[in-house]
Formats: sequence, structure tokens, C-alpha cells
Amino acid sequence: MNRPTDFHIKNDREESDMKYLEETIKNIKEINRPIKEKALIRLSEQARPAGSLGILEGVAARLAAIKGTLDVRLEKKVVVTCAGDHGVVEEGVSLFPQEVTCQMVENFVNGGASINVLARHAGASVRVADFGVNKDFDPGMPIFHKKVRKGTSNFTKMPAMDREEAVKSINAGISIVDELVQKGGVDMIGTGDMGIGNTTPSSAIIAAFSGIAPEKLTGRGTGITDAMLEKKISVIKHALDLHRPNPLDPIDVLSKVGGFEIGGLAGLVLGAAAHGIPVVCDGIISTAGALIAWELAPTAGEYLFAGHRSVEVGHGFMHERLNLVPILDIGFRLGEGTGAVLAFNLMEAATRILAEIKTFEEVAITNAQKNS
Amino acid sequence: MNRPTDFHIKNDREESDMKYLEETIKNIKEINRPIKEKALIRLSEQARPAGSLGILEGVAARLAAIKGTLDVRLEKKVVVTCAGDHGVVEEGVSLFPQEVTCQMVENFVNGGASINVLARHAGASVRVADFGVNKDFDPGMPIFHKKVRKGTSNFTKMPAMDREEAVKSINAGISIVDELVQKGGVDMIGTGDMGIGNTTPSSAIIAAFSGIAPEKLTGRGTGITDAMLEKKISVIKHALDLHRPNPLDPIDVLSKVGGFEIGGLAGLVLGAAAHGIPVVCDGIISTAGALIAWELAPTAGEYLFAGHRSVEVGHGFMHERLNLVPILDIGFRLGEGTGAVLAFNLMEAATRILAEIKTFEEVAITNAQKNS
Repeated sequence: MNRPTDFHIKNDREESDMKYLEETIKNIKEINRPIKEKALIRLSEQARPAGSLGILEGVAARLAAIKGTLDVRLEKKVVVTCAGDHGVVEEGVSLFPQEVTCQMVENFVNGGASINVLARHAGASVRVADFGVNKDFDPGMPIFHKKVRKGTSNFTKMPAMDREEAVKSINAGISIVDELVQKGGVDMIGTGDMGIGNTTPSSAIIAAFSGIAPEKLTGRGTGITDAMLEKKISVIKHALDLHRPNPLDPIDVLSKVGGFEIGGLAGLVLGAAAHGIPVVCDGIISTAGALIAWELAPTAGEYLFAGHRSVEVGHGFMHERLNLVPILDIGFRLGEGTGAVLAFNLMEAATRILAEIKTFEEVAITNAQKNS
Repeated sequence: MNRPTDFHIKNDREESDMKYLEETIKNIKEINRPIKEKALIRLSEQARPAGSLGILEGVAARLAAIKGTLDVRLEKKVVVTCAGDHGVVEEGVSLFPQEVTCQMVENFVNGGASINVLARHAGASVRVADFGVNKDFDPGMPIFHKKVRKGTSNFTKMPAMDREEAVKSINAGISIVDELVQKGGVDMIGTGDMGIGNTTPSSAIIAAFSGIAPEKLTGRGTGITDAMLEKKISVIKHALDLHRPNPLDPIDVLSKVGGFEIGGLAGLVLGAAAHGIPVVCDGIISTAGALIAWELAPTAGEYLFAGHRSVEVGHGFMHERLNLVPILDIGFRLGEGTGAVLAFNLMEAATRILAEIKTFEEVAITNAQKNS
């Protein structure tokens, strides 16, 4: 007797979840094209050879268009490190045991991890979010508590999560941006990940969207052997064959071969774009999340920057699909948001380039004043 | 009757010049190998996958070995922008007229140029040095006044400078580092250039050392046309045929196809290495100077970092010869030191990586303390 009622209640919740996601997507506006045009003109009139500051010129123009000014200030910077566990680790696709996800979350909170060190260096704060770690954290722990479930299902046997859970994980990411905006505001967001085994779903996601063979998209993650790499590829192939994720339905892709933190990462991008905040993605997991967001709402891509190109082979295919040029290319393959926060400094440099380098005309005026 | 006396005086000065250069080279010591080893061990024991922070790990270890500590601080940062003019511009190898060199020196002093903006962003100070600009600057102008001569000779007709001038230009660069060290000290030096036409001697220098054909080494500088590029290549070929610079004699190479600011740039590298200071080179001109230094004193290379890979095609051949991996690859082709100062932030990040990321052991201790 209870079941229909349960079902009905569930449907209501599902509907409200979908509404929040749809509202967020509806709030993503195109960036300010006239300001972008103005920025490009100013850059071309500066006292230096045209185009001589390479990719930072495009970064500067896009940031100007996002913020609606030629003098962009990126003061409040936050990196959100999104954690989740993965049932697929049962298949032996990672060097590290699943417990490391939870240990690293504790390490982030204690401030001694790579992302803490590099964020401090970048003048950014680190916020950690649990979307699906296989451990009950103390509710008083200073993280975003957004657990959907304690780890996804092993997607070689069943979908990683159901559709409702997929939407929930995305919404959880959006809600974090809402909260950051409400409590103190934020000028730029970096996205990072922690989750043992999570390069496997990430490679599966880009394979599902692009149709490119998993052999070409799958890398060694934290440094697995040849035999483990073979296994990882076959796991991804098997999952794609079994579930046939629909590339035109990003929620379907996320639910069948994704991860809870990947949904959260997608939500961060959608939330940032909806609030008009530039968002910088990190490695292959973070960029898999960005890809889900972009497939759901292509306009979100206008707010998105690729912090770096990792050594993970699938990453380049993601950037190509997103039409993004990575800012750094320094052989990182760590995640946590490390490659995103290190790009912050260069993005801030780009804002100074646009605002402060004088045009030929301004130089002539200065010289005339000095000589008069 | 005067000539022999003159000749004698000149020889004395030459001798004393050579002595200063030789003393400097003698003062360049190997970096601290045990500290480098210790740094690499600590990096490998940090709580993250081995090698996951890519090229910054090697940067961190080398900086530690230069400074003799695992906790390197790079607080006083200076970029020295070296200016000079080039007789070869008569041949039509640049888009810009020679007067721009002098105008840009004034722009640097007034603080509105690209290098001023990016150095400010990097927390570095800009020092400008005149090694051979074709203009008499007011002696009160706040620059290093190191003019050897007002522009090199057109090396399609005669050597760019004589041997004495070449040594003088290098010594002038060394003396700048001496002065920086004496007056307030300096923790890291970036090198940059300004000189209309100076990609032509730079390409000629790497061609002379490597024996690689100028066609493969010569780029478009500030953006010259196909026809000008053809001309530039033929100018370099002609000069190499005419003067036959001896690749085993770097002073010969510098004097025949170099530039005064390129000699100065070489001196900065030698001076920095002699004082145990890390030195970051910028684009193809700055790296041509570094190449002269390295050919004179290979140990200087241990103190040398490549700030970025420019789009100028000869640059990669220089890095290969110097065995350096550029830190940034962001499409810059400006010079002035812009790509060097932007790398500063990443080098400082590297020092924090080494000093602050906890090892697995340190994480375990922290966790045990928290749980006790």
C-alpha cells in the first residue's frame, strides 16, 4: 500500500530537483560581447607587437566580458575540492586503496595536502566537499556535507548511480556556489577532485560523449602498470557496452559511468556560470565534470577556463571538445585542484595586462607631458 | 709614434677585462648535490603520487641545491631588461624603426610597459640597462648606464663588434649583478631584452653554435612578412658565411654576429651563477645571452631556468642545447623579461611544494595526534 505514495513523494522530490537544475541553467547568460570587443581593441592598441602576449590576451578579454569591466579584480578566490568514492575500484583500476579518499579529506581539513599548500601560495581558500565518500564524517567537520551515497555502484555490473542521484549530485555542486555567493562572495572558483579510482569514470565520460575508443582516452592515473592499464581500458569498454550511455543525455552519461564528485564538479560549473563567476577546472576528473555541465548548458563554457593540461591522455580530448586552451602545461597529474589554483596567478596577470599596459597613444601622451 | 703606446694601453685594459671575466667564471661553483638529493627524496615521500607535480619538482630540487636549503625563500626578485641597438636593421629585418628601442627604454622608466605591469604583478622590480642604444641618455636617468657603443655594426658588412667590446658587454652584465648584490641583495634574477632587430643576431648565435641551418632557426620576431623572413634568413646565412664565427669560442660568436645587450645578458647569467643566484631567462634574445654564458661556463647552466617557450622557432633549439625545460608555454613573443617574471610565481610555488607538502609519515603523525 505504501509504495504508490512513496513513489509519488519521490516524484515530487525529483520534480523539484529538476526544477532547481533547470532554473540554474536558465540563469546562465551569455557573457558581455561589447566589453569583450572593447578589451580586444585595447589589447591590440597597447605599445607592444600585436598578439605578443599569447593566450593571456584571450583570457583577459573573456574575464573582462564575464565581469563587465576592463579592470577585473579577482580578489576572493576559492578552490572547491570534491570528494567521492567509486564502486569500480573493486576491479583493480587504481594503485591506492579506497580508504585513501577519506584520509585525504582529513589531510585537506588539516591543511597539509598539496592543494592547501598551492592554494595558500595562490591566495585562495580551500573548501572541501563530500559528495560520496565511503565513510560517515563527523557532521561538525568543516566541509560541505553533500553526500549522495557512500560510493557509487561498480559500473561494470550496474549503473554507477540512478538518475535521481545524478541530478542530486549536480544540484549539490550548484548549492555550494549559492552558499559561497551568499556568505562573503567569490570572484573566481577553481574546481578539484579527490576520489580513488576516479580517472576511470572520467575516461568513460569523454569516451561516451566523443565516441572515441577508450584505448585512446585512458591513462595511467596515479601511475598504474601496463597490466592495470589494460584492465582499466577493458573495464571502461565493458561498461559502455553494457549501459550504452546516451551522449545526447548528459544525466544518463553521469548516472551510468560517472561519479558523485563528478556530478558535484558539473554543478560547480553550472552554479558559477549562473552567478557570472569565472570557473577554472583542473585535471581530467574536474574537466569531466565541466564536460557534463557544458553538454547540459553550452553557454556555461563561456565562464570556463582550463587551468592546465595534465599528462592524463584523455584530458586533451576534453579540452578539444570544450574548445579550451589550457593555461599551464607542466606535467601535473595530481588533481585536488592543484593545476587550477596555479593558473589563478596567470589569470590575474591577464587582468593586469588588459588594465595596465599602456597603449601607443597613452605612451605618447606621457612622453609629451614629461617633455613639456 | 702614439700608436704603440695606445696599443699597449689597450692591451692592459683588455687584460684587466679578461681577468674580471675569468675571475667571475672561476667563482661559479657546482650546486649543492647532497641538498638536491635530499629534496628529491622528500618530494618522493610526500602524500601524493610520485612525480605528480611534474616539472615543478625538478625546479624545487634545483632551487634548494642553489640556495642550500629545503626551505627556499625568493623574496627579492629583480628583472633586468637589457637594451641595445643593431646595425643589421639597415637590412630591413624588423617591422619597427630603430627609434623604438630608445622610446621603449623611456617607457620602462615611466612604468607603463608590459614588463613593468607583469613585474609588479610578480612582486619583482624592473631595472633597465643600456648596453648599446643608439641615443645618448641623460646620465641622471635611473637606468644602468653600460653603453659599449651606440649600436652594433651591420654584421652583413663587418663584425657586429670587436672582441674587446664583446668582453666589455659581458663584463657590464656581470657588474650589474655585483651591484645588485652589494646594494640590498637579490634572491632571484630575471633577464629580459629590448632592441629592435635583435631576434636576427639571436638566431645567428644559435645557428653558429649548433650548426643547424638558419632556415630552421629563424622566426618572425615581432611579426614580419614572408618576404622579410626570407630576407632575414639570407642576412643570417650571409653573415655566417662572411665571418665564420668559431663555435668553440663564444666571444668570437658574440663579437661577429651578436649584440651589446646579448653580451650583457650573458654577463647577467655569469654574474648570477658566480653569486649563487638563480637566474631565469625569457625569450630568444635573453636565451641567446644565456647560451653565450653557458658555452663560456657550462656550470652556469645549473643556476639557469627557462621562464617560457616563446613562439619564436629558434627558442626550442636553444632550450635543447641548454638542456632546459621551459616552465611556461603560453604563446608569448614579446621579450622585455615578461616570460621570465611570469615564471617567478611558479618557481615560488615550487619552493612551497618542497617545503610545505607533508610526507605520508608527517600526515600519519598529525592524524595520530588529532585522534589521541
